[in-house]
Amino acid sequence: MIRIAVDAMGGDFGPRVTVAASLAFLQGHADASLILVGQPEVLSRHPHYAQLIASGRCEVISASDVVSMDDSIEVALRRKKNSSMRLAINQVKLGAAQAAVSAGNTGALMAIARYVLKTMDGIDRPAIATQLPNAAGGATTVLDLGANVDCSADHLLQFAVMGSALVAAIGGNDSPSVGLLNIGEEAIKGSEVIKKAGELLRSAASSGDLNFYGNVEGNDIFKGTTDIVVCDGFVGNVALKASEGLASMIGAFMKAEFSRNIFTKAAAIVAYPVLNAFKKRVDHRRYNGAALLGLQGLVFKSHGSADAFAFERALNRAYDAARNNLLERVRERIAHAAPLLLAAQAAPIADVATLSTPEPVVLTVNPA
Amino acid sequence: MIRIAVDAMGGDFGPRVTVAASLAFLQGHADASLILVGQPEVLSRHPHYAQLIASGRCEVISASDVVSMDDSIEVALRRKKNSSMRLAINQVKLGAAQAAVSAGNTGALMAIARYVLKTMDGIDRPAIATQLPNAAGGATTVLDLGANVDCSADHLLQFAVMGSALVAAIGGNDSPSVGLLNIGEEAIKGSEVIKKAGELLRSAASSGDLNFYGNVEGNDIFKGTTDIVVCDGFVGNVALKASEGLASMIGAFMKAEFSRNIFTKAAAIVAYPVLNAFKKRVDHRRYNGAALLGLQGLVFKSHGSADAFAFERALNRAYDAARNNLLERVRERIAHAAPLLLAAQAAPIADVATLSTPEPVVLTVNPA
Repeated sequence: MIRIAVDAMGGDFGPRVTVAASLAFLQGHADASLILVGQPEVLSRHPHYAQLIASGRCEVISASDVVSMDDSIEVALRRKKNSSMRLAINQVKLGAAQAAVSAGNTGALMAIARYVLKTMDGIDRPAIATQLPNAAGGATTVLDLGANVDCSADHLLQFAVMGSALVAAIGGNDSPSVGLLNIGEEAIKGSEVIKKAGELLRSAASSGDLNFYGNVEGNDIFKGTTDIVVCDGFVGNVALKASEGLASMIGAFMKAEFSRNIFTKAAAIVAYPVLNAFKKRVDHRRYNGAALLGLQGLVFKSHGSADAFAFERALNRAYDAARNNLLERVRERIAHAAPLLLAAQAAPIADVATLSTPEPVVLTVNPA
Repeated sequence: MIRIAVDAMGGDFGPRVTVAASLAFLQGHADASLILVGQPEVLSRHPHYAQLIASGRCEVISASDVVSMDDSIEVALRRKKNSSMRLAINQVKLGAAQAAVSAGNTGALMAIARYVLKTMDGIDRPAIATQLPNAAGGATTVLDLGANVDCSADHLLQFAVMGSALVAAIGGNDSPSVGLLNIGEEAIKGSEVIKKAGELLRSAASSGDLNFYGNVEGNDIFKGTTDIVVCDGFVGNVALKASEGLASMIGAFMKAEFSRNIFTKAAAIVAYPVLNAFKKRVDHRRYNGAALLGLQGLVFKSHGSADAFAFERALNRAYDAARNNLLERVRERIAHAAPLLLAAQAAPIADVATLSTPEPVVLTVNPA
């Protein structure tokens, strides 16, 4: 039996989405059960709630607080200790659930998960990994997506190892290829951090810790050149959001053209089955459910605007990860790569700024 | 009379595209003339060449070398001193042309332009700026797109000032809004460099040097939240290429769905005028022609894969920039912002890496 804790209050729509998705999820997974965390009086108002409880596979834990989308990390962490988000993660910590899923505020979720579950041995910083559809017909796993604004080369190596464990566990591919996001394919391109990360990744490939492809560029994410693309959280977040913006602009333009006049509307009716098939193919909801990797427990983040279909996909991903022992797989891979990770950390990597800033670094150091 | 120097050998298709585009450009601009730089024996083989020369507004300068797409900067700069790219830029240096346009290797073009023309007073690093279509029906100008992999806060301020001059000159908008690309809208988000850049941009807004909107996120590029989006070259390059990759994936999926069987093919015929209008609307060729800003001369970069239509757009942009005194406008704005730029450079900005690296910085510093 796989048990998943659900932050039922999180996301733009809260229980309206989480309760409906929970029911659909249980109907699809006979060996799963849920712990719904939220305000029972709010949850019980939702149409599918009675059926969910009647399934006998859904327990409810009462939470007095809700972390809002605007709450600062400080507020979420220190002042809302009884939030549905916090209590859902606590279930993982206590061993009552194998994974937690929330559609709430990403910053708060990462901070609480890190505080409650702690990071794994050998990992400095947890990362957020998601899947994006690619032209090869599969999905590309990209990390980090915003948990870390500045990364050193050894952080990028850790992301590559964790991402490989994720794709092995969920995608069933034991040796997924890893690309290092850069602004050119040649090894000499990019910042000092990226060049150093390239060296570390090549070492990891030699020692059998990774299947390193080499540098990739932004377009390779959607081409599907590699199974995994590794980057710092700033770059990953911008690339993901720029893509979301472009996709929604293209959708809006297409809608505008098809609803321009009576002739174009007629064309839309004729083309409807094709447009629908196309829409399904690029439906980002299918890829909902980002993994928070590097913690001593499984946590998945759903998009805040997820509907019931999308939130159910996030529950499915958490289920697959738990069923396929993602946590143990990450631990094993990190342990295997430990000598390399330690060596990378022992040799302080002169960061970009140190190398390129004309001002001497000594200015910031206390000579005493 | 506006005169533009054309690197006729550059790009994936060379003279086949540049000669045809040059003729179309002259036909559209009665007050323009061209200096075509290339190998006359190759140029003369192209169908529109005779007509181009017969126009009386096209001079040809012979160049013995061609910079290839794979040439390193070293080779392009030191060993191909008689390349069509180099000689076209020389025409700007000599004052014979007001702008140069090339579809060749970006790295080589930037290096040669920098070497021949030098950077403007007050500018540390030139930047590459391009336009992307947005959902608001206009275009968003984004810079930098890859000339600078690591930027400090004052570089981002310089980009904002130069981008404002570009949009004022070409877009006719004297006070274009500037957004700082970040991973959240709040001023407290992002790396130390970004936070510091936000402060500088706010100061520049107070002193009337800029119309600063605040932070924007990746999706705002295509939403059209601001006229200009400023970012470092690594992030800008990844965002641009990821968007290109997504657009081409979406195009391929749509084509696949419409050519699936005889019924979908029939639907494609019915929907053809609509699909065509849609295609025109998202046609990236319309936005071809990136400006190299911050140099003592105007240089525009066309996409390497540009066809004649796209290359003509790049020529048009160069023409508009020259006609509207882009160079003088950039100079004036930089001069106006000079006190601020100087203050920003005088105060050494503690870079991200220095602040966030767990290893003590002293390790890299010689105590003697």
